[in-house]
Amino acid sequence: MHRDSPAPPERMARVRAMLHELDVDALLFLDMKNVRYLTGFTGSDGALVIGNKQEILLVDGRYTNQARKEVEGPRVFEYKDKEKIDGIAAILSDGSLRSVGFESQAMNVNTYLNLTEKLGGLKLNPMSDQIGALRAVKDEKEIAFIKKAAEISCEALTAVRDLIRPGVREKDIAIELDFLMRRRGAEQVSFPTIVASGANSAQPHAQPGSRAIENGDMVIVDCGAVYCGYHSDETCTFAVGYKDKKQEEAYSLVKTAHDRALEAVKAGIPCVEIDRIARECIETGKLGKYFTHGTGHGVGLDVHEAPRIASNSEMVLEAGMVLTVEPGVYIPDLWGVRIEDMILVKEEGCEVLTKVSKDFTVLH
Amino acid sequence: MHRDSPAPPERMARVRAMLHELDVDALLFLDMKNVRYLTGFTGSDGALVIGNKQEILLVDGRYTNQARKEVEGPRVFEYKDKEKIDGIAAILSDGSLRSVGFESQAMNVNTYLNLTEKLGGLKLNPMSDQIGALRAVKDEKEIAFIKKAAEISCEALTAVRDLIRPGVREKDIAIELDFLMRRRGAEQVSFPTIVASGANSAQPHAQPGSRAIENGDMVIVDCGAVYCGYHSDETCTFAVGYKDKKQEEAYSLVKTAHDRALEAVKAGIPCVEIDRIARECIETGKLGKYFTHGTGHGVGLDVHEAPRIASNSEMVLEAGMVLTVEPGVYIPDLWGVRIEDMILVKEEGCEVLTKVSKDFTVLH
Repeated sequence: MHRDSPAPPERMARVRAMLHELDVDALLFLDMKNVRYLTGFTGSDGALVIGNKQEILLVDGRYTNQARKEVEGPRVFEYKDKEKIDGIAAILSDGSLRSVGFESQAMNVNTYLNLTEKLGGLKLNPMSDQIGALRAVKDEKEIAFIKKAAEISCEALTAVRDLIRPGVREKDIAIELDFLMRRRGAEQVSFPTIVASGANSAQPHAQPGSRAIENGDMVIVDCGAVYCGYHSDETCTFAVGYKDKKQEEAYSLVKTAHDRALEAVKAGIPCVEIDRIARECIETGKLGKYFTHGTGHGVGLDVHEAPRIASNSEMVLEAGMVLTVEPGVYIPDLWGVRIEDMILVKEEGCEVLTKVSKDFTVLH
Repeated sequence: MHRDSPAPPERMARVRAMLHELDVDALLFLDMKNVRYLTGFTGSDGALVIGNKQEILLVDGRYTNQARKEVEGPRVFEYKDKEKIDGIAAILSDGSLRSVGFESQAMNVNTYLNLTEKLGGLKLNPMSDQIGALRAVKDEKEIAFIKKAAEISCEALTAVRDLIRPGVREKDIAIELDFLMRRRGAEQVSFPTIVASGANSAQPHAQPGSRAIENGDMVIVDCGAVYCGYHSDETCTFAVGYKDKKQEEAYSLVKTAHDRALEAVKAGIPCVEIDRIARECIETGKLGKYFTHGTGHGVGLDVHEAPRIASNSEMVLEAGMVLTVEPGVYIPDLWGVRIEDMILVKEEGCEVLTKVSKDFTVLH
């Protein structure tokens, strides 16, 4: 329970405005990150109904007291254990509603079919990720939480560098890193920490395994902390033992792509433009086909959220957005490089929130 | 990647038999635990189609090589990044299928509506959790993994007991416990570890916080490890500093309920019967209204899976099922007791897989 979890009333007002835009009488939220964003409730299960006259948080008996403590605006309604769908149906069937919008990616088909049956004539309208766009721009409190999360992961990443030496297994580095993040105040880790060495570093989503670090390895370390619900995300790639010319050249290219993308960031720039700048830079260095993922993503209550920084992204950067810039190249079966910082978009330029040096570094 | 992940061909044969029972031409699986169970594929995203003639694992480019290494029977089909629904539609639209069953709890409405549109006349039939019932009975390899997971969490729980003393914060105990489980070989923890002391122990789902242990506390520690994808789950409740008569009496009552439930377990007994035995025992001791949750649940690739041991459970115990027995009482705002073991159901009786002593224990 985080008594300082932020839920300013403006957010509710923005959702009310959506009722009109989407031409529905109420909205039903099941994505618990959205529910937290709109109400401050940090429990793991529940639902939120917002209409012109309704503002109701539905929870089961485990969470009734917690909800009453955490939430200011909405009325708290308790449904019976295992009877969430009945609880939602009861609230939506108050007679005043004809159509209800819902998050189509957060509701499963079982719930949908059951609810449709119970609601009779009331129409359920799937909506796309409107709240995602709202959540993309952070307020001061959210930025403070994200900065603290970044500080925790930076400190842990810095402390663990000594372990990255020949003979130490990837998973032991990951376990230590997770331990250090939590000891420094992380509620949890943002995602399963990646420590990928040697040929494993050529897989963007490698899981840390029993492989021991060797001289000549590139080692990708990608980690994040969660603080008051908010995530951080940062990646360093280290060389171990000595400088390999090809590795250093690739590192330098990825670093240039990263730097140019960062230089281009400011309010008003389309996300596709940031992706294009990073991608063209790596293509110019003839490694374009090894840059196999998007350039970045928003970070907040989810570690991956709007906006996506990719070639088919439709959003435009706004001041207050927090996002990663993380170009990489992955030479199959040999090694990979990824350089990732998390930044805060400003009217002019950006502020880098992740502080570990991204200069080419040879350890041990 | 776990090369020893189990996927015996009998499982596929059981699913083929379901095609007839459910009167569909193919089944589409999106729940990645079910996909792992049926194929051995351990990636985090994909889909599986099983028809009379088809046996196809769909993955994106990140997982193609891994899928080919891990999977023996099914053909591996690669869909483009972010185009999973198109990939599934392409496979299902081969002309041979008229109806396809799918897991209605594992598909979201966005996917359902998109897929329905792309599939034209092909009918999507929601199915309930048939695979859950299949997964409930474990084979030898699965039992070996679960035993190893239980061994890891038992060792860590035993090692951390010394930390449970006045002045130590709940979260520091939880962090240490998680660290020890991973150092002993856990891939991850089964669920967020619970360390709940004093009044926090009266909340069945408390999260470890900054409260420091005090003399007179009951401390509930609930944790589990994951090994080769399989979970363990065990709970101890300790008294700290001295024996309080009411706490000891409640502990003794919960222990009796736990023991009687365990004594009743064997193949052929309905799950409701096990729940009834534990519940009646606690009701006889006048604490029935404080036993606010079910008596247990199956454990396997998910930490909560079939069968549920609750008053409305419909399953009957079979040899090879692995489940928890975890009665508890929670005196609001004061303290709680939960005693949980994980057991393997046998033709006659059961084997207790979790080994930490459940005798009433006063620490420090």
